[in-house]
Amino acid sequence: MAKPEEANEYLARRAEEVNGWLEQLLPAQSTPPETLHGAMRYSMMAGGKRLRPALVLASGEALGAAAEDLMPAACAVEMIHTYSLIHDDLPAMDNDDLRRGRPTCHKAFGEAIAILAGDALMTLAFNVLATSLSCGAERQIRVMREVARAAGTVDGLIGGQVADIENEGRDVTAGALDYIHGSKTGALIRGSVLIGGVIAGAGELELMKLGEYGGRIGLAFQIADDILDVTASSEQLGKTAGKDQAAKKATYPAVHGMEASRRRAALLVEEAVEIVSGLDARTEVLGAIAGFIIARSS
Amino acid sequence: MAKPEEANEYLARRAEEVNGWLEQLLPAQSTPPETLHGAMRYSMMAGGKRLRPALVLASGEALGAAAEDLMPAACAVEMIHTYSLIHDDLPAMDNDDLRRGRPTCHKAFGEAIAILAGDALMTLAFNVLATSLSCGAERQIRVMREVARAAGTVDGLIGGQVADIENEGRDVTAGALDYIHGSKTGALIRGSVLIGGVIAGAGELELMKLGEYGGRIGLAFQIADDILDVTASSEQLGKTAGKDQAAKKATYPAVHGMEASRRRAALLVEEAVEIVSGLDARTEVLGAIAGFIIARSS
Repeated sequence: MAKPEEANEYLARRAEEVNGWLEQLLPAQSTPPETLHGAMRYSMMAGGKRLRPALVLASGEALGAAAEDLMPAACAVEMIHTYSLIHDDLPAMDNDDLRRGRPTCHKAFGEAIAILAGDALMTLAFNVLATSLSCGAERQIRVMREVARAAGTVDGLIGGQVADIENEGRDVTAGALDYIHGSKTGALIRGSVLIGGVIAGAGELELMKLGEYGGRIGLAFQIADDILDVTASSEQLGKTAGKDQAAKKATYPAVHGMEASRRRAALLVEEAVEIVSGLDARTEVLGAIAGFIIARSS
Repeated sequence: MAKPEEANEYLARRAEEVNGWLEQLLPAQSTPPETLHGAMRYSMMAGGKRLRPALVLASGEALGAAAEDLMPAACAVEMIHTYSLIHDDLPAMDNDDLRRGRPTCHKAFGEAIAILAGDALMTLAFNVLATSLSCGAERQIRVMREVARAAGTVDGLIGGQVADIENEGRDVTAGALDYIHGSKTGALIRGSVLIGGVIAGAGELELMKLGEYGGRIGLAFQIADDILDVTASSEQLGKTAGKDQAAKKATYPAVHGMEASRRRAALLVEEAVEIVSGLDARTEVLGAIAGFIIARSS
């Protein structure tokens, strides 16, 4: 398996498995507080690509871990991702009405519940990591550490979001742009690849290579996202297209032009595939996912 | 030591120690993203009572743990508490302008940064728990589990906040009121007492007693808070007084009357002291803190 369309099939299959686990891990909608649990499920079960969970699975399985031992961590990462989408969509932030083809959480449930649903998904992610991993206490703690770091402020998800907001409408340097995207999107993608390796018991050298692979595809993913924001329709994306330009966001096409952006993404993916193929592991799936990241249309 | 005024001195002394640790654990304001780290420090270092950290310390020390092994967890719990205050104060929630005697985080930094500062403090709390505990991996995981549960939706902080919002302006039953307060305030206070015990290596029976003590003083604390909202000034409280009544919040004085509320709080404290004195441990401080909880004036 090496072609992007095969990655497409792989991702669709894993997404279904992940959704089955999420159904179990999320509190039942009938458990109080019902509104909040309903909002958490609404945003979680809106049919995302489940790229991050797939990376946890692909990375862990490449190094010999079993899917069932990877699934709780895969789901936890998707909870972190979804909490960040819910909060980023809020009126005080990106003020977005559409996400994964449906009204955003605050449009459907109001701002207070959306803020709390985001908080609750982050809390649940750490709860799942603290209760449902079977890889031994030492690895478990390492997983939690990597997730907390990837989600955090220094080179992490939140730091990237702050830089993104603060640079709206400004001319940014190529370096600042790499920082924003590397943190906002790259860190959690890299973290997903890493924790699969940690659960599988990878050594430090293997983790280093997984991290380099993950950092590159994370950045490539965001470049592809920036390109799609310009070239695809809202219907294709399931979220408002053309938003970046309208909000004068710092994007790759805006800073480097469309062609240079495509070349940069392709180069990052090429490097990522080469790095990961240097591992003594079954890394075909990781290679295919890297290819998918720039070939996707939504 | 058994008198509330001695608890006052104890709390002041521990608050200073906790503040010193927080200074180290919080990212430097000069580390990017500077605005966000500034906002996190602004809300964290605003001079709270540090009751929850003191409970981690008092509980852990009662069972033989050293302060330095308890401090990271004590600080993490205060980060969770402060994140929840920042989010609860947001315009979409309680819409409060004043907290710990200063403008609330969103008043000082804007809503987007306040939302992200709250998110970042929760993330940092779990990061600290995953990186800075020295009690061994098994206990460390148990601590993270207790914190995640106390901060969560089912009988936890977030669940209580949702119930509180949803019951504004409604007549609530005594049972619903206990649920709101037991979750919104009680869960994290109980969790603080518990994790001190976990770090000290307490057995399940001891943890059960600590949990029962913590649950009672948590509820008593919120009853006292409700009473102070009516009887104290904004200046004394460092937050807007009379807010509960204005917002038609479900409170103990509103549901049970002032005198019955005072009696309930006193009874809970009495029970808490009795439960904890049954432990084979140096529990005088825990007893004094319980007394302080209803004797305090802010």
